[in-house]
Amino acid sequence: MKFKAFIGKLFSITLVTVSLSSFASEPIQPIERPADIDQSKAALGMKLFFDPRLSKSGFLSCNSCHNLSMGGSDNLKTSIGHNWQQGPINSPTVLNAGLSLAQFWDGRAATLKEQAGGPIANPVEMASSHKLVADVLKTIPQYRAEFQQVFGSPGIDIDRITDAIAEFEKTLVTPNSRFDRWLLGDTKAITARELAGYELFKSSGCTACHSGPAVGANSYHKLGLVRPYKTENAARGRIAVTGNKADEFVFKVPTLRNIELTYPYFHDGEVATLREAVALMGQLQLGRDFTADEVDKITAFLKTLTGDQPTFPLPLLPPSTEQTPQPEPFG
Amino acid sequence: MKFKAFIGKLFSITLVTVSLSSFASEPIQPIERPADIDQSKAALGMKLFFDPRLSKSGFLSCNSCHNLSMGGSDNLKTSIGHNWQQGPINSPTVLNAGLSLAQFWDGRAATLKEQAGGPIANPVEMASSHKLVADVLKTIPQYRAEFQQVFGSPGIDIDRITDAIAEFEKTLVTPNSRFDRWLLGDTKAITARELAGYELFKSSGCTACHSGPAVGANSYHKLGLVRPYKTENAARGRIAVTGNKADEFVFKVPTLRNIELTYPYFHDGEVATLREAVALMGQLQLGRDFTADEVDKITAFLKTLTGDQPTFPLPLLPPSTEQTPQPEPFG
Repeated sequence: MKFKAFIGKLFSITLVTVSLSSFASEPIQPIERPADIDQSKAALGMKLFFDPRLSKSGFLSCNSCHNLSMGGSDNLKTSIGHNWQQGPINSPTVLNAGLSLAQFWDGRAATLKEQAGGPIANPVEMASSHKLVADVLKTIPQYRAEFQQVFGSPGIDIDRITDAIAEFEKTLVTPNSRFDRWLLGDTKAITARELAGYELFKSSGCTACHSGPAVGANSYHKLGLVRPYKTENAARGRIAVTGNKADEFVFKVPTLRNIELTYPYFHDGEVATLREAVALMGQLQLGRDFTADEVDKITAFLKTLTGDQPTFPLPLLPPSTEQTPQPEPFG
Repeated sequence: MKFKAFIGKLFSITLVTVSLSSFASEPIQPIERPADIDQSKAALGMKLFFDPRLSKSGFLSCNSCHNLSMGGSDNLKTSIGHNWQQGPINSPTVLNAGLSLAQFWDGRAATLKEQAGGPIANPVEMASSHKLVADVLKTIPQYRAEFQQVFGSPGIDIDRITDAIAEFEKTLVTPNSRFDRWLLGDTKAITARELAGYELFKSSGCTACHSGPAVGANSYHKLGLVRPYKTENAARGRIAVTGNKADEFVFKVPTLRNIELTYPYFHDGEVATLREAVALMGQLQLGRDFTADEVDKITAFLKTLTGDQPTFPLPLLPPSTEQTPQPEPFG
């Protein structure tokens, strides 16, 4: 028994070594659960993420366009905002957003916290104001108590609101995908065909941009590097942030984690299916016309990137009071 | 020890007897969990309840207007539908809706199942069609498998869709409110002031309509029995169903369960606060001007009707496929 245990231990050490070396040489790393989450702050942030009182109408919440039932996205070309206004760009998934080098397609927000304040006050999205949402939440005793408990002093303002939302969003990672299990040494976690898709994904140069734990989201690149991308969408990418002409049509490389769930594709949402997206990316970025079989193989690999989705009880929101400013859905 | 156990048993029997007799004579009965729930059908119904692909836009789900984070309502005067159209009437809570004698404010649907088909195909609500939603769901393998497993044969149609949604809705009860605990013999579950509010609620005649487990929802009555209710809302109540002139302004009596959570009040949603609603109901239905203290006492009682809210993990929805008809949010 002692000998068996020793062998067992040796074996598990070997396994770990194999695992580490197996992904140390890969351009993609497994997703890890975030350390140092402030659980009570994240629990408050979860409520805020689902609370439509963060919008002028009282109808739209963060979850409306970053729906955690649907891969953290809305599965629409571009989003629906206040008064059914059509958003300018495809809503990026909130899943693994904490792994991004910056937020929004053009990277105009440095952090999750900075991003969270954007849609709340954007007239074509939630159409409220930073002051109004704080004024709304201040009238609700349970929120007052929870902010005090989380932040250690009384007070509700946009800084604390977005801080809590960002803390919740940090928890929205999707570890344990089949591909990650493969990276970690479980050779049976993906099929031979999926592995062939991954090899092709690497050998054809996709990993030049789609790398790291998020399989993207760690660099900016031009869309239409080899052939131009034709779109009627007005977004022009990072030029809006830098003012630099060279940044026209340069976007943050989107994460490919959970890509099976976050259709439609591209910043304009004009690409309906994953196979179309793969074929197009081959042409636009690599100047390569993948065969149907190649597209299928890469698509099969990409579907192995769907990880464990965050699961949690639907939050129950504290009711408004007589003092709460009324929503203005039609105002 | 044996003697103690015997006394203990005797005591618990006595308690039960007291409990039964305590609410047997009351006009309100405790909420009970429903028996005979088909759990796998309800689990499918939960997914459908949260699935925005039941709407033409791909953006609105049952939960949009019957938000289970907010007492099963949208907390708006009237709802927001497809293309931000303003709904004609206040969205009733889905909580305890299975206890209603019929569905909708005018009772035009006999069952939860019949109700569920309404908003899906209503052009000012979800704006889809019964055929389209079935066609959408049929293209999704996980749904196909789940319908087959639940119903014992392949096939997805509106009959099965609404059957599953209704099964989920049957589970949305809110037992264990402080008032129910009082009814069941826990004399400390409500305060003396709340009890005084209940006594006044009974003695002034509110229980003529607001009775039974749902504290309402078991009869139709005219709004403005003693003094007319002035509203610009076009809804005229049960006359739309019966064609009977006497049914003008006759509505289903709303449930008062969780009333603290389901503001604003009345069929037109024009009454913002519970205190206003109590004062107005006194005038309109009883011809009585409650004093501020009386209004406060009844309001305090009504807040004891908030029960345990349904809690469950946010459902994860299966992704669409290349065959799935595209949503048309702006079409």
